[in-house]
Amino acid sequence: MNSPQETKVCVIGLGSMGFGMAESLLRDGFAVTGVDVNSDAMERFEALGGAVAADPAAGARDAELVIAVVVNSGQTEEVLFGATGAVAAMSEGGVVMSCATMSPDLARAFAARCAELGVEYLDTPISGGALRAASGELTIMGSGPSSVFARIRPALNSIAATVYELGEEAGTGAAFKVVNQLLAGVHIAAACEAITFAKAMDLDLEKVYEVITASAGNSWMFENRVPHVLEGDYSPRSAVDIFTKDLGIVTDIGRSMKFPTPIAGMALQLFVMTAAAGMGRDDDASVARMLANIAGLDLPKAASPASEG
Amino acid sequence: MNSPQETKVCVIGLGSMGFGMAESLLRDGFAVTGVDVNSDAMERFEALGGAVAADPAAGARDAELVIAVVVNSGQTEEVLFGATGAVAAMSEGGVVMSCATMSPDLARAFAARCAELGVEYLDTPISGGALRAASGELTIMGSGPSSVFARIRPALNSIAATVYELGEEAGTGAAFKVVNQLLAGVHIAAACEAITFAKAMDLDLEKVYEVITASAGNSWMFENRVPHVLEGDYSPRSAVDIFTKDLGIVTDIGRSMKFPTPIAGMALQLFVMTAAAGMGRDDDASVARMLANIAGLDLPKAASPASEG
Repeated sequence: MNSPQETKVCVIGLGSMGFGMAESLLRDGFAVTGVDVNSDAMERFEALGGAVAADPAAGARDAELVIAVVVNSGQTEEVLFGATGAVAAMSEGGVVMSCATMSPDLARAFAARCAELGVEYLDTPISGGALRAASGELTIMGSGPSSVFARIRPALNSIAATVYELGEEAGTGAAFKVVNQLLAGVHIAAACEAITFAKAMDLDLEKVYEVITASAGNSWMFENRVPHVLEGDYSPRSAVDIFTKDLGIVTDIGRSMKFPTPIAGMALQLFVMTAAAGMGRDDDASVARMLANIAGLDLPKAASPASEG
Repeated sequence: MNSPQETKVCVIGLGSMGFGMAESLLRDGFAVTGVDVNSDAMERFEALGGAVAADPAAGARDAELVIAVVVNSGQTEEVLFGATGAVAAMSEGGVVMSCATMSPDLARAFAARCAELGVEYLDTPISGGALRAASGELTIMGSGPSSVFARIRPALNSIAATVYELGEEAGTGAAFKVVNQLLAGVHIAAACEAITFAKAMDLDLEKVYEVITASAGNSWMFENRVPHVLEGDYSPRSAVDIFTKDLGIVTDIGRSMKFPTPIAGMALQLFVMTAAAGMGRDDDASVARMLANIAGLDLPKAASPASEG
């Protein structure tokens, strides 16, 4: 990769993660083209000085690196290989980074299709949330040829604080991400179950947060999500629907491998229940609201009713 | 409380936690009498310079403070109120600390029975494990009259790094501990499910540990227990049976309050399955062995076959 100024990068998907990544690249001097079906996001990106393109093929035409940051494997397939997909428009030797959480089998299949078209594929699921995307401090659980990682290192440095290179083949990064999502999803559901259980026992929830975060019952997710419950703020930092999807991937993989994932399966059902209760697009801490609603418990309310979701 | 040298403390239950607590008190100069049904533990305690007594009543006779560190509420009832129980033998105004995990209702009932006999009761579940018990750095999730906590402060300082005073009434400490155990038990089961799921996907488990402990999927228990799996060492630091008990308390409370605890209920079943497979007295990370056995996966083996359990 040449200097950032001479390196064209196309970011497909300007949602909360993709927008932050595109912003980080722009800040570091890369020539970034953004693509999204949402014209508001494209306008916001242009206002920052970015270029935009009408579809993935148009955005990818001259790009050395295409980063697909869409919601799931279906959208990834569409933006890479669909009628106006990026890969057919790319020059030979171009690099695709695929960031959506998906099964290892699909990541391998996408890599094979890229190879047929002379394009390099890196399996690069991301972790860290919107704030860290905006500050260029994501974690990437990556796999693919180390020579290709080396080639796009300047762009990786721009978007990520930590880049794990977990193997030479696509699929390994995806598998690590899926293990992380199993734990993350279970821990969110468990945090919501525990804090509402504490409410049912009439405990001081602020005190519960203080004690648990200093004890062996703590998790990254308990520490991160329970404040949403304490503030009664269910505006989506990460939505319930993300985990109905990701724990669905976990349990689908388990079923296809004939490996039992009972805890993930139960956590999935709690996210499905929460989505069924109309909170699929709200913050994933809404699992607590769902349980409190069932049991008639009064969790804290937000200061402003507008953010109660 | 006078100087440690003039303060008689009786520790009932010289298991991994109680022994460490008795040892910490002894080190700080308290006059400590140990009581246990296991004569080996009593001999080891005498070898350190401690006194021993044949039963709780004998040990508690002159004690200003009696600390019950037995496995469950049944044993607590027996050592406090049984035929040779401690409380009837204590002087008026003596203090009982009760450390076993139990339901808030039972803690309140034990406090009421102590009050009838003129003895103060502190609801003081402990957390931190055997190593921190031995170094005097436990966490106490306590409740009871603050004046009584103040009176035994020198002893509390000897055994604990952190003492939460969570309310003036017995039961509140118990409830906080139960919330902690809900999360701790779920996180152990989830850690075991995740690491064996990673094995089923043929990932490098050492690498999984490195990546997850730096990611949003981390928990205190993942970080603490997965090394047992990586080392293939299932010698009990904390046994499977502890969590069949503690998650049983959680789900019993939930059922009696009519509050659903589906994740805790599923985690409980995994501990029961592991106990059913003959591993109840092994380390609680054995949930991973149980899942691996079902699926025919080869988890790491210990260097020495003797510690494989």
